[in-house]
Amino acid sequence: MHSSFSTNKTVLITGVAGGIGQVLWSGLPDEVTRIGLDLQPTPAAQTYVGNCTDAAVLDRVLTLSAPVDALVHLAADPRVESPWAAVHGTGIEGTRQVLAAAVRHGVPRVVYASSNHVVGGYEADDPLPGQNGRPRLTAQAPPRPDSLYAVGKLAGEALGRFYAEQHGLRVVCLRIGSVRAHDDPTRADRLRRTWLSHRDLLHLTVCSLRTAVDFGIYYGVSANTHRMWSLANARADLGYRPVDNAAAHPAETA
Amino acid sequence: MHSSFSTNKTVLITGVAGGIGQVLWSGLPDEVTRIGLDLQPTPAAQTYVGNCTDAAVLDRVLTLSAPVDALVHLAADPRVESPWAAVHGTGIEGTRQVLAAAVRHGVPRVVYASSNHVVGGYEADDPLPGQNGRPRLTAQAPPRPDSLYAVGKLAGEALGRFYAEQHGLRVVCLRIGSVRAHDDPTRADRLRRTWLSHRDLLHLTVCSLRTAVDFGIYYGVSANTHRMWSLANARADLGYRPVDNAAAHPAETA
Repeated sequence: MHSSFSTNKTVLITGVAGGIGQVLWSGLPDEVTRIGLDLQPTPAAQTYVGNCTDAAVLDRVLTLSAPVDALVHLAADPRVESPWAAVHGTGIEGTRQVLAAAVRHGVPRVVYASSNHVVGGYEADDPLPGQNGRPRLTAQAPPRPDSLYAVGKLAGEALGRFYAEQHGLRVVCLRIGSVRAHDDPTRADRLRRTWLSHRDLLHLTVCSLRTAVDFGIYYGVSANTHRMWSLANARADLGYRPVDNAAAHPAETA
Repeated sequence: MHSSFSTNKTVLITGVAGGIGQVLWSGLPDEVTRIGLDLQPTPAAQTYVGNCTDAAVLDRVLTLSAPVDALVHLAADPRVESPWAAVHGTGIEGTRQVLAAAVRHGVPRVVYASSNHVVGGYEADDPLPGQNGRPRLTAQAPPRPDSLYAVGKLAGEALGRFYAEQHGLRVVCLRIGSVRAHDDPTRADRLRRTWLSHRDLLHLTVCSLRTAVDFGIYYGVSANTHRMWSLANARADLGYRPVDNAAAHPAETA
């Protein structure tokens, strides 16, 4: 499914040492030239160590790597329990700096890792969205952030919209579901609803790097029968065609 | 219209020295005890000088003023052209600190001054919302922030939702239109659409202090014939009944 991706693209991935970053680093199509940025060193030669809240770091990396065709901005404290200082700093300030750096360096496109937790408040409802006849949540559902982490992701989406509309960036915000190193949707009940398999994540990322839409917000989830979130706009705008479904993975009996 | 407001309420107004703060300070019903907080001193004895990004300042003011029944959070750099540092600091951090302080001190209710600029991007459209048969924007319309200022206001709305849902605060977010010291809707063409008269602002604030809704987002605009924003949910949830309409004020001929 990756073969139709335009060749010879250079993508800078922030937060590349994290869980999602490592899936992308090792799984994106070979023709995508990858540059990494992270607070932590990684074994990869093409990864820079630095903080994306620091404009000078971004300037250096983007100058050394030019021309960069797209930024995939994953860097953030990944914990739903992130303290406010991390949300306000790495999260909100980092996203602002990355978007501003994209404009400064003529990088035309940013894929932003938002989170399903921006609508996590709906998980207090009974029935859940998408269950017992209740419609799935669309990207236009009123946000119900379940955490300061999710508040930071909403601020990032708003920054993305601003930079798309006022500065001509293409910005795709992905409200990513549950990506796990084990990639096994049977490990927890919630994963039956929220799993995003590695191969669907890779496909969705490629779709997001290719789309002609100027701005959009999409849920990143596999085609799980019990998903809470609509994939309608991801199918229509991005051509996202997930192949995995947690319901196809029977739970092991104890 | 103010006579039915519960008596003996104490309200802390942040940013009280600003344009909207001064309208509230001088115009709220007499039975509302007002406390002010601002970076700038004002002649009013009951105004404290301090920064609402400073938790210690909020703790001192809320302790000295206890019990406070509601916070009206206006403090922010009021310029649509606010630089990011002000948005990130006074705007986002200040709002976070105010909401957290409300929880800490048992203040049950916050009215948050958001801004119409969170949907300012629609003003690049032709026709505008609410004109030539195009529907007015509801509070659920996808945000289109026209500025970093507006991004900060969206972050504030998200913080409000989080604190309402996860910490039991009542939070009303008002996307305030154009409040002017001269209170004259004929001074500029945009005001014909966006004017919020002083008396409608005061009424809307009282409605917001009285409502039983736990969280809501409402446009703050007079009943201008040419308004771009729907008042349907403000009428239904808050009982807002604006009495002014810019169209009733003929422009002076030159």
